[in-house]
Amino acid sequence: MNDLSALGRVRVVLSRPSHPGNIGAAARAMKTMGLAHLWLVSPASFPDTVAEARACGAGDVLAGARVVDSLQEALSGTVLAAALTARRRDLSLARLAPRAAAAELVQWSRNTCGEVALVFGCEASGLSNEELGLCALPVTIPANPAYASLNLGAAVQLMCYELRLAAMEESGVSFLPAEPLPEPATHDESENFFAHLESSIVASGFLDPAKPRRLMPKLRRLFGRARLEKEEIAILRGILASFDAGRNGCR
Amino acid sequence: MNDLSALGRVRVVLSRPSHPGNIGAAARAMKTMGLAHLWLVSPASFPDTVAEARACGAGDVLAGARVVDSLQEALSGTVLAAALTARRRDLSLARLAPRAAAAELVQWSRNTCGEVALVFGCEASGLSNEELGLCALPVTIPANPAYASLNLGAAVQLMCYELRLAAMEESGVSFLPAEPLPEPATHDESENFFAHLESSIVASGFLDPAKPRRLMPKLRRLFGRARLEKEEIAILRGILASFDAGRNGCR
Repeated sequence: MNDLSALGRVRVVLSRPSHPGNIGAAARAMKTMGLAHLWLVSPASFPDTVAEARACGAGDVLAGARVVDSLQEALSGTVLAAALTARRRDLSLARLAPRAAAAELVQWSRNTCGEVALVFGCEASGLSNEELGLCALPVTIPANPAYASLNLGAAVQLMCYELRLAAMEESGVSFLPAEPLPEPATHDESENFFAHLESSIVASGFLDPAKPRRLMPKLRRLFGRARLEKEEIAILRGILASFDAGRNGCR
Repeated sequence: MNDLSALGRVRVVLSRPSHPGNIGAAARAMKTMGLAHLWLVSPASFPDTVAEARACGAGDVLAGARVVDSLQEALSGTVLAAALTARRRDLSLARLAPRAAAAELVQWSRNTCGEVALVFGCEASGLSNEELGLCALPVTIPANPAYASLNLGAAVQLMCYELRLAAMEESGVSFLPAEPLPEPATHDESENFFAHLESSIVASGFLDPAKPRRLMPKLRRLFGRARLEKEEIAILRGILASFDAGRNGCR
């Protein structure tokens, strides 16, 4: 995977996080999606061993975190900021879904080569109206209206995942490293198998050519759905041959 | 939001979870996305106060969790199971991305009215080959190849989010409850504003009609991007009128 460089220009900003465990969870979530730049606005406790434990293998993200006193400072130098919010505010813009917001952040960062920010509020009360006002893109995660309370680390994971997908889409990176799949059977191999199958079940007496009961179309449908591989055809024909031989008394 | 009934037919199965905190996080993640049926295969510790603390408002999901001895039991009665795996196995099928797997689970559940399962392995080693063999859909979360270690609760959050999006898409539910957006300005209101703006900056001397320097097209471009609202036009024209009046010595 490469040229996901837009991910290197994303700041994840946590404003006033109260639980150090969530800072660690956010760092881990970021790193799993290839993000590295964590900014903390007035964290209740940082550095903190609880954060380090939860960060697991993402201690480097924690170690590189910038601690500042205001969201203004954290956004200084960025060209676009998206803010997570569960609520509609009086003066709010139309809220975006995570996918749309991620696409916009990645595209804007690529077009401008500028840094962009993804801003999360504190666990209990989210972002203040003042903080939201500093961000051009309000984002709402579609959640269960009866219980929309995502854990902060989980929300960071979900948004970073959408950013990664958006960056991959923009750069045409496929989602998994190339892996050799088993070789598929060709049309002719499949047809030879169906011919073999038909002759075997006619010989066994299961298929009466005078009353075919749409049996072969049904079997074609079944195996068609499975998209047979070359090796599987060989196995199936081996099985048929073993039945054929048994019936012919050759074994 | 309604008719997300497919979400009610999804079992989230955690096989041999070792940390009770992750069981609680999974329950919370499920509930935020409208899922309710948690199955635990041989959990190291359950029930557990740590799980309850992390579940936050999703204690009902924990209380309703089914504890069984094997993945076979947890899948009994389901019609399709997807399994999270980070690795390619020798006999594996082509792996799906979370989005594709969620779409398939939701569609299959809707078409068959049957229950489907989303299966997660234990934190340290994931699912065994035997367990993976019981699930028709292997799913891999696209992650940073250098650090692909998602927390179990975070992985559950992400998959449940994709399931919710897929269920919403299938049933045509929009992602946010309808909310009245401010009334947009009409074409005529915008044109009247631009005419007012032009006359005001001509009067102020900023725009020289003899050398217009593409100023009005630039201002149209700026305000066009903003998609002006009716009330905003009124405010802007009020501002212009105040400048006009000041210049005319009427204040």
